[in-house]
Amino acid sequence: MKAAVLFELNKPLRIIDIPNLPNLKTGQVKVEMIYSGLCHSQVMEATGGRGEDKYLPHMLGHEGVGIVREVGEGVTKVTSGDVVILGWIRGEGKEAPGGLYDYQGQTINSGGVTTFSEFTIAAENRLVKVPKNLPLDIAVLMGCALPTGAGIVLNELNPEQDKTFAVFGLGGIGLSALIALQLYKPKKIIALDIENEKLALAKELGATDIVNLKEQNPVDAINALVEGGVDYSIEASGKTDVIEQAFLSVRDRGGLCVFASHPPEGELIKIDPLTMHRGKNIRGSWGGGSLPDRDIPKLSDLYFKHRLPLEKILSARYPLVEINQALGDLAERKINRALIDINPSLVKEVSAE
Amino acid sequence: MKAAVLFELNKPLRIIDIPNLPNLKTGQVKVEMIYSGLCHSQVMEATGGRGEDKYLPHMLGHEGVGIVREVGEGVTKVTSGDVVILGWIRGEGKEAPGGLYDYQGQTINSGGVTTFSEFTIAAENRLVKVPKNLPLDIAVLMGCALPTGAGIVLNELNPEQDKTFAVFGLGGIGLSALIALQLYKPKKIIALDIENEKLALAKELGATDIVNLKEQNPVDAINALVEGGVDYSIEASGKTDVIEQAFLSVRDRGGLCVFASHPPEGELIKIDPLTMHRGKNIRGSWGGGSLPDRDIPKLSDLYFKHRLPLEKILSARYPLVEINQALGDLAERKINRALIDINPSLVKEVSAE
Repeated sequence: MKAAVLFELNKPLRIIDIPNLPNLKTGQVKVEMIYSGLCHSQVMEATGGRGEDKYLPHMLGHEGVGIVREVGEGVTKVTSGDVVILGWIRGEGKEAPGGLYDYQGQTINSGGVTTFSEFTIAAENRLVKVPKNLPLDIAVLMGCALPTGAGIVLNELNPEQDKTFAVFGLGGIGLSALIALQLYKPKKIIALDIENEKLALAKELGATDIVNLKEQNPVDAINALVEGGVDYSIEASGKTDVIEQAFLSVRDRGGLCVFASHPPEGELIKIDPLTMHRGKNIRGSWGGGSLPDRDIPKLSDLYFKHRLPLEKILSARYPLVEINQALGDLAERKINRALIDINPSLVKEVSAE
Repeated sequence: MKAAVLFELNKPLRIIDIPNLPNLKTGQVKVEMIYSGLCHSQVMEATGGRGEDKYLPHMLGHEGVGIVREVGEGVTKVTSGDVVILGWIRGEGKEAPGGLYDYQGQTINSGGVTTFSEFTIAAENRLVKVPKNLPLDIAVLMGCALPTGAGIVLNELNPEQDKTFAVFGLGGIGLSALIALQLYKPKKIIALDIENEKLALAKELGATDIVNLKEQNPVDAINALVEGGVDYSIEASGKTDVIEQAFLSVRDRGGLCVFASHPPEGELIKIDPLTMHRGKNIRGSWGGGSLPDRDIPKLSDLYFKHRLPLEKILSARYPLVEINQALGDLAERKINRALIDINPSLVKEVSAE
């Protein structure tokens, strides 16, 4: 099977052919991949942004959709033939070690879930069946971007109506948050990014105001729009200085910033204690507080009920062999969330069922 | 009247005689002082730790006890003869500007409350009547240390039983927190400071374990006592590096650090975003979330009901003329909270009532 593997940091992934898959261990599931998503986390991993990488060479990718082909001992949640969402957030079912793949005598490592290969071995607890009728390209987003971005809104803020919001960083997570905010009849949503194209999209998706972070001081711009700052800010730019701006943009006495960004290792957020005394709050998000087994069906229902324009999040498609191009385009912020076609012809098998 | 006034940063306060008090404005109250407390905030203000000081020369002090001698227009909460607690946390009643005192043709400024003088002019909303039978030296602590330290526990944590705690910095606030924690049947209270004397006192006041911050890495020491870290940490050392340690000492997935420290201007807390993703939380406290009119009677009731050993917090007494000695001893951490005797003979007048 074809796989895109990280052999060395800061080098392109190598597209290799792995002849055989290992036997499944307890809790492991073999999945034939249809689509993978692409998240900024993979850019960070491939470029050493997570620090020293003691698992090289290893597989990559943490959101996708595929068909279960075989289940290991103890697996009860899915069975052969199930169409599943793969995601990094742990859900119900067994935890299991990553698959170890042999390639020309060398072991290729992987974690509990990876998605940049024609087949993958994932832990049962990283899989959730695709909700009925959910288009498979949309389903890919349920592995990371949506549970995180929409999860911050639904699980971690759960705001009242008529509140004011700022969304920093309009990638997959930021756009997912923006779309979910529409469910709460916000008074104001200020969308912030450095790309005018993304800001235009945000406006289309319901942002009431947009701010280009390269052109304006975001804290000043937000205070000009909402005196004293917004009730909530959601941050997903990947940068510590933007986390700091998002924090300073919320009001004193109860404003809350939730950030999903996972900046390069060693970069720290710097906070003036007095701003915290004054009641600005900040929290990190772990996958939007999502429980995949509970939240994926819920997100799917919301998608259908409110016709959420989730397809807008996917701004580009690439075949697996062009994964390095996709990583480069994402790193340069040319695209929002990319869809990686691994075996799209399998979609027919699914829809024939 | 005698007053201890800050004329220049990093110089001793000058004890001067102010011949006349100004007429009261709306919302102002004239109080004859009995005792003042002494908080690390005054050390910070006098040594420039709050940055540029555009109000020099000015009065100082933000917790105390005295007798109301005159009330300005619109004041309804207190009346002449009332024995009151003065504190910096705003409560019910009118806000008013600080008194402006004339001294040899120079104006001496003051804020909504100051306490280092024989008489003071305070805003109505900084005064609460002393609860019945409460000893006046204990009452002084109700102006700052207790509402903040105990307030963090009662208002901001309100913990369940059997939780684990760390208290960093055993001054007036830290000790107040420690004493209040006893009300919640904690599983463990780890007290941390750099002074062995304070640690011994903490043990006497209910700490189950003590750690000298100069001798041990506090995060390691806490993890050795409570695997994975404590449920809650309370921080009141005045230092950003200790705030950071207190934050790192709480457990992932829901641990909470609340800090009261107000470090020197410009010093920032540095946080690894990943620790927040993992669910460690941090919040600043504004006076322990206390509402003085609600919480002072409550703290007084707790004091009587549980015989809280609040007198242990007051480790030293000084007359007003020795205020600079007191400030020096506090800065060098020789004492916990000091009581400043301004006119203790007035205690007789109060008890004769």
